[in-house]
Amino acid sequence: MSKIAINNSTAFGGAISQADVDNLRSKALAAAATLENGDGAGNDFLGWLHLPSSITRDELNELQATADKLRRDCEYVVAIGIGGSYLGAKAVIDALSDSFAAYKKSNGPKVLFAGNNIGEDYIHELMGLVDGHPFGIIVISKSGTTTEPAIAFRLLKEQLERQQGRKFASGHIIAITDAARGALRGLATQEGYTTYVIPDNVGGRFSVLTPVGLLPIAVAGFDIAELVAGAVDIEQGGDEPMLCYAQTRNALYQAGKKVEILANFCPRLHNLAEWWKQLYGESEGKDGKGIFPASVDFTTDLHSMGQWIQDGERTIFETVITVESQSAKVVIPSDDDDLDGLNYIAGKRVDQVNKMAELGTRLAHVDGGVPNIVISLPALKERYIGQLIYFFEKACGISGYMLGVNPFNQPGVEAYKKNMFALLGKPGYEEATRAIQARL
Amino acid sequence: MSKIAINNSTAFGGAISQADVDNLRSKALAAAATLENGDGAGNDFLGWLHLPSSITRDELNELQATADKLRRDCEYVVAIGIGGSYLGAKAVIDALSDSFAAYKKSNGPKVLFAGNNIGEDYIHELMGLVDGHPFGIIVISKSGTTTEPAIAFRLLKEQLERQQGRKFASGHIIAITDAARGALRGLATQEGYTTYVIPDNVGGRFSVLTPVGLLPIAVAGFDIAELVAGAVDIEQGGDEPMLCYAQTRNALYQAGKKVEILANFCPRLHNLAEWWKQLYGESEGKDGKGIFPASVDFTTDLHSMGQWIQDGERTIFETVITVESQSAKVVIPSDDDDLDGLNYIAGKRVDQVNKMAELGTRLAHVDGGVPNIVISLPALKERYIGQLIYFFEKACGISGYMLGVNPFNQPGVEAYKKNMFALLGKPGYEEATRAIQARL
Repeated sequence: MSKIAINNSTAFGGAISQADVDNLRSKALAAAATLENGDGAGNDFLGWLHLPSSITRDELNELQATADKLRRDCEYVVAIGIGGSYLGAKAVIDALSDSFAAYKKSNGPKVLFAGNNIGEDYIHELMGLVDGHPFGIIVISKSGTTTEPAIAFRLLKEQLERQQGRKFASGHIIAITDAARGALRGLATQEGYTTYVIPDNVGGRFSVLTPVGLLPIAVAGFDIAELVAGAVDIEQGGDEPMLCYAQTRNALYQAGKKVEILANFCPRLHNLAEWWKQLYGESEGKDGKGIFPASVDFTTDLHSMGQWIQDGERTIFETVITVESQSAKVVIPSDDDDLDGLNYIAGKRVDQVNKMAELGTRLAHVDGGVPNIVISLPALKERYIGQLIYFFEKACGISGYMLGVNPFNQPGVEAYKKNMFALLGKPGYEEATRAIQARL
Repeated sequence: MSKIAINNSTAFGGAISQADVDNLRSKALAAAATLENGDGAGNDFLGWLHLPSSITRDELNELQATADKLRRDCEYVVAIGIGGSYLGAKAVIDALSDSFAAYKKSNGPKVLFAGNNIGEDYIHELMGLVDGHPFGIIVISKSGTTTEPAIAFRLLKEQLERQQGRKFASGHIIAITDAARGALRGLATQEGYTTYVIPDNVGGRFSVLTPVGLLPIAVAGFDIAELVAGAVDIEQGGDEPMLCYAQTRNALYQAGKKVEILANFCPRLHNLAEWWKQLYGESEGKDGKGIFPASVDFTTDLHSMGQWIQDGERTIFETVITVESQSAKVVIPSDDDDLDGLNYIAGKRVDQVNKMAELGTRLAHVDGGVPNIVISLPALKERYIGQLIYFFEKACGISGYMLGVNPFNQPGVEAYKKNMFALLGKPGYEEATRAIQARL
């Protein structure tokens, strides 16, 4: 069976050497042991660690049956969630979808996202799109009171009940929430929604392989058993790849490389980088520390951020996701006039040119003082995406412990919420409201 | 007439003071004078400076007539270009479009983009989408030999001729290229394409108000006269806003704020940030210098990068684009049970909540040591987007000169291309081919 692989050989020679990476070996092993032993900070959020191998065939079948019902009855399915309740599903669906899927007929519902922002035009336009069409809702919220998804759910639930009747609505709203507590659990019980559980010990950014990610991905028509099998491949394949990534990026950070740019040469991976940014940014960006996670889509952004990367401050490194083979085959045609001078690559597949752009970029960036780490995927298929997800999750846990932070909390996310509640006059925030009003 | 506005008051108190910004006044004025006098580095690329006011009604009418023809005859129009020949049109079209436009019927063609990557699946999927449908092509390339757009154009031109006949093709391919030289100019003359000129003195990242951006924007159904009028508003409105932005960001950079995050609270602005990244990244990222441009979409990314921004390394600042009013109106409904606890905001518009999220975020980030600059737009309309474009362009020229670089070249972009040509064995690169093969 093929697997993703990591290669850090182009990270050496400038800012760091192989020895710098090797010197972090014991620290990395200690971090991995801390994860495995569950005796580090945030150890009540380690449910993701052996999650893949714990998922049963029955659980997957049950999710698939729910997905099949939504696929049969709905033209659209709106997944409502924010942060980890949005990014994982979005990343996987986009990585596996036709880039022009939105414009094309499909043999299942279109999966849309809401509750991931507070855009008034956005929700209006979404409600206009599903107006008059049978649609389903997957509402994902641990508490059921997170502002963004709660607003979207109130609006879309009302629309669905009005439009398709309460019976259809209660049969086509799926709630993914706390096992026992919270507003959404209460509502689901009252209305008889099908429900799935967000485990207590799995944080949002590690939740893509729970029903949070798996249900929307299954509704979009992708093979969740293969996705999970891919994660198991890495969970059970030994820590070497994750240690390599964690050691290399920490060595680079210590050497003054403050920004990690996740680069791809495959437009479908744009949102995988967004998922990765949450995973690493939220896990490591605390206590005044942490590599700043950024991303680029190449070759597009070689004509944008490329100049900065080549010649700007030498405080960056790149992690490049390379996809070995494409699903489609497009050959560059020959042209009698050859005005554009492309005949020298006529007969080649487009991807062969892309691969040379990629190799040429790697050489140019390394020459320019930008260390590169390369992660290769055999193809954009469920199996390898599952491998990549678990790879990044485990490496993130190791890397965070190496950095000396709790990789599993996110105290900084509360700051804006608290201010927002105070400004909106939420009950219970009276004192904060008075304090914030005095500042304005 | 309403205008965009800049407010830097929340940039002070931590890393920099008002005095630090004031101290850069004379430097900023000198930079603006250098631009105006045309006696600085890169002064052969200042055609954008008084471009807006030089565009005539006749030129706009002529572009509109071409756009109308494509709108009448085509279901899809593919704009082929990369870098500045892609990002400007994409940014403006997205900022003005329904977020779900791809899923909806429209009264004109869908504008799609190609030649902005070398994704084999991407071009295959695009060719599948337009298969059997009348489509048009806007091909944008100064030379006609840039690899990415040249490959896409070869493939799509062949498909269009095969599918709709050579007569339809030559009537519905528009070439935007050099006035006299180059492969695309030659082909356009030979085939009788309608053509528009990329002025010699306007670099790609400053070209959105030339036909490069205006034609695709007009084809998408937006008012290019208003867009240009907005740019004129700022071109002729005095330099104060641009000086303010250039001084503030340079003061922050000098104080160790190495990353500028362009933030929005309006999902439609995602690609405006991508355009901005090219503008600033490519203009300033050179000679080992330059603020690293990054971007976030809030509140989405408050549940992703929010943690890092609040608590990570204190080397960042934010520039927030705020949109004062939304086009749609959506009121949060009341609910008898109020299980989600949202009744305290029932009756409010969604945007009122978004505005409190925005204000709450600003206060939280400033408290957390992240200086904020705020740029406000009255609404997402052509006029204000035009204002914003010229604002950012002019401020970029000033800021680049303040930094001491040539803001109008991009020497670093050649590095990957040279390697790619060598690896692909392009005629004329024989020596480079031998050298690079020896490295592998």
